[in-house]
Amino acid sequence: MNVRMLVYILGKVLLIEGVLMVLPVICGCFYGESQLIYYIALAAIYIGIGLIVSRKKPKNMTVFIKDGCVATALSWIVLSICGCIPFILTGEIPSFTDAVFETASGFSTTGASILTNVEAMSHTSLMWRSLTHWIGGMGVLVFLLAVVPMAGGSNMNLMRAESPGPTVGKIVPKVRSTAKMLYLIYLAMTIAEIIILFACGMPLFDSICSAFGTAGTGGFGVRNDSFASYAPHIQWIVAVFMIMFGANFNFYYYFTTRQINKAFKMSEVRVYLIIVAAATGIICFSVRDIYGGLGEALRHSFFQVSTIITTTGFATTDFDLWPSVAKFLLLSLMIIGACASSTGGGIKVARFQIMFKTIKREIHTYIHPRTVKKIHVDGKTVDTDVEHSVALYFFIYLVVFATSMFIVSFEGHDLVTVFSSVAATLNNIGPGLSMVGPTQNYSFFSPLSKWVFIFDMLAGRLELMPLIVFLNPSTYKGIIKKAPKKVQG
Amino acid sequence: MNVRMLVYILGKVLLIEGVLMVLPVICGCFYGESQLIYYIALAAIYIGIGLIVSRKKPKNMTVFIKDGCVATALSWIVLSICGCIPFILTGEIPSFTDAVFETASGFSTTGASILTNVEAMSHTSLMWRSLTHWIGGMGVLVFLLAVVPMAGGSNMNLMRAESPGPTVGKIVPKVRSTAKMLYLIYLAMTIAEIIILFACGMPLFDSICSAFGTAGTGGFGVRNDSFASYAPHIQWIVAVFMIMFGANFNFYYYFTTRQINKAFKMSEVRVYLIIVAAATGIICFSVRDIYGGLGEALRHSFFQVSTIITTTGFATTDFDLWPSVAKFLLLSLMIIGACASSTGGGIKVARFQIMFKTIKREIHTYIHPRTVKKIHVDGKTVDTDVEHSVALYFFIYLVVFATSMFIVSFEGHDLVTVFSSVAATLNNIGPGLSMVGPTQNYSFFSPLSKWVFIFDMLAGRLELMPLIVFLNPSTYKGIIKKAPKKVQG
Repeated sequence: MNVRMLVYILGKVLLIEGVLMVLPVICGCFYGESQLIYYIALAAIYIGIGLIVSRKKPKNMTVFIKDGCVATALSWIVLSICGCIPFILTGEIPSFTDAVFETASGFSTTGASILTNVEAMSHTSLMWRSLTHWIGGMGVLVFLLAVVPMAGGSNMNLMRAESPGPTVGKIVPKVRSTAKMLYLIYLAMTIAEIIILFACGMPLFDSICSAFGTAGTGGFGVRNDSFASYAPHIQWIVAVFMIMFGANFNFYYYFTTRQINKAFKMSEVRVYLIIVAAATGIICFSVRDIYGGLGEALRHSFFQVSTIITTTGFATTDFDLWPSVAKFLLLSLMIIGACASSTGGGIKVARFQIMFKTIKREIHTYIHPRTVKKIHVDGKTVDTDVEHSVALYFFIYLVVFATSMFIVSFEGHDLVTVFSSVAATLNNIGPGLSMVGPTQNYSFFSPLSKWVFIFDMLAGRLELMPLIVFLNPSTYKGIIKKAPKKVQG
Repeated sequence: MNVRMLVYILGKVLLIEGVLMVLPVICGCFYGESQLIYYIALAAIYIGIGLIVSRKKPKNMTVFIKDGCVATALSWIVLSICGCIPFILTGEIPSFTDAVFETASGFSTTGASILTNVEAMSHTSLMWRSLTHWIGGMGVLVFLLAVVPMAGGSNMNLMRAESPGPTVGKIVPKVRSTAKMLYLIYLAMTIAEIIILFACGMPLFDSICSAFGTAGTGGFGVRNDSFASYAPHIQWIVAVFMIMFGANFNFYYYFTTRQINKAFKMSEVRVYLIIVAAATGIICFSVRDIYGGLGEALRHSFFQVSTIITTTGFATTDFDLWPSVAKFLLLSLMIIGACASSTGGGIKVARFQIMFKTIKREIHTYIHPRTVKKIHVDGKTVDTDVEHSVALYFFIYLVVFATSMFIVSFEGHDLVTVFSSVAATLNNIGPGLSMVGPTQNYSFFSPLSKWVFIFDMLAGRLELMPLIVFLNPSTYKGIIKKAPKKVQG
């Protein structure tokens, strides 16, 4: 393991976190809030430590896949722990467990909250809370790769560990250019949303925080009722932007480079939109009598489908009161999740596509044993390795899900609460059903359950493997064995 | 497709069903019940038709794997439909849907019932109802293979389609001898249970029906409160027998042939017993305050764990009132299920073993990419084909589960009812939680949901593939294409 490189990356991550804290500081100056003093102090400390630790580039910048996993896991743990300190210092979230929960929920773009009264928070802290969504959405290491030049295959191993989806598509040959491109598209779309929301009459502060929450598919709001009290046209705009941020970003890349044909050939985006349309239609039909008219039912259905499939977690209505079929569909959308290479969570549409194609192929081979068929997605053959990794993903997902439910079930809450709280955190959504429904929060859970959720949120955002490799003792065999021989790597 | 062979097999199956009806006839004579007249008539008709249809052996007895699937699916459909006629004729279950539900539930060893008052049924019909469990447990085609000689690989394809587990172990080189051996062990254990229960003070009729329900891991009882009103020592005996019938039958084969070493090396049986012990311990701890003493809590915990993991479905207490952690564990046991090559349902312990070993291997390969590892179970290498089929099984299982839940959720019952009714039928258990809890029944569901459950019960018993192949249009391509060329097979 390349320990020096690891320290270098963590230093850079802390530096980035310090720099990011400048935004809440600006916000605090604007509103003249006393809380900003803590953000100034912490920004200075983090930038200072970050600069010292990462002042010298390591000679050997090689990052193997396991190093990439460890670096990613540690980066996100550092982000969450260092990011929660301001909440503790300002006294707005005095408990350490709660503060880590809220921050991990932010960076992992979950949006599950332990706050019982969001509106009592300072603007400074609310801005920081929403900003964690934005940086967590596209990824801090992807950001690092975009600004720091690294060696050949190493950056790919970092990118792979942090980016969502069964395969990591380099949209351009160089990883660094891909990372830059992704962040540029991401930034442009976020700014577009801020401008449109502001132009449509939303206050600027709300526009910025909402756009951060939408872009990262996070879900932290600045009002206690999430989006219920905003005007209907604001709800429509946010719903459309959520869908856009849940789509595969390669789609936008093809668009900006005028490869429109390629963009529209992406079957994942097509399947994703079909699922959204079908779910909206069925749910709208099932809730048509609850609301004043078909228009209102359609708006609430579309908003809730968007917020759940993209794993954002905003809400305009209490969907816990909806009929079973609607609740079942929302639970399914939680698990399906958004597209690969988007900022959304869940298992991802692409994995389900590969799963269905595997089923079809295997049944065909079972009936006609002498034929051999390969799976194709968008005209490209799917590697057997990718097929394996998809099956493995489902297996590990199942084990993590069941283990989490087992631990949380000791608290004695009803099974829908237990199931949906794990589903909502592992898939980075936020609200679930029953006691963690959209009008509720996570404050009543025991510290043990909260730490399970913190693990699930990070594991879900990093798509399981990095945390599993990080926690696996066999990862560290090399260090202990090779250290005396002075072999680097 | 070998259509003549298919007709021959179906004829034999109908013949067997007719012969089996002699047992309720004897029971009816003993109790002097008028219902026996219908059983006599139907037995005569089924035996007659069966003899006529299967009087001539087809020249070409080749059964390809897809023919095996179609034959198995059709056999079980014929069994369920012809088996339900007596219930309709006696007027005890007047609705066709309900009668098919009850019979499919019997043959598939599910034990889910639409009866609101079991004790109002005639002894004749109760005997027939319990007998369906017994024949369904080991399988009607396995029975057929044991008594009718067939060509080389063909019987293997039939056995594979009907027998549970990721691989079909021929315990002796010849399929026919394996089938005979299995049925002999099965019969001996059933008779042992009848004798022990009778000797311990259970009425003979109850002993026979209970033993059939235990042996097939079915779950139909003859009392409205299932096993709650039997004496504690009877409950202990039945619980132990349930565990025994849920174990891999190869274990008993090794025992009877004095290969004790081999028997105790079977890791699946070991893991199965460990799961039973762990679940019993945790549940006993969680319900310790509900019952009069630790002994009573242990008895109820052990009985319920046995009945659920073996997918039998008897009950001594209303576990729907237990705390969340106990209910969560029972739901997990429902899905895990019993051992491969047992009469139990569920996904099977062996498949989870392979799943966990795959996860371990893949994580190792991920961290150390240059190593190649094979999976071993009981010292034998697991074929890549088997690994694939296990992943495929999980995928198809997930799709069938989700689709069933979607359809049933339209009825508007709570999510725990929807989830557990599908889990309890697809895994062949019987009772679930909430509205389908152990003191409830399935009579309130709409006919559509009942047909979904009928499909799930048969699909679960036959482990998905036979019904999927049966319903897949590509299975029948050969018939239409090849027929004009007069090519058989």
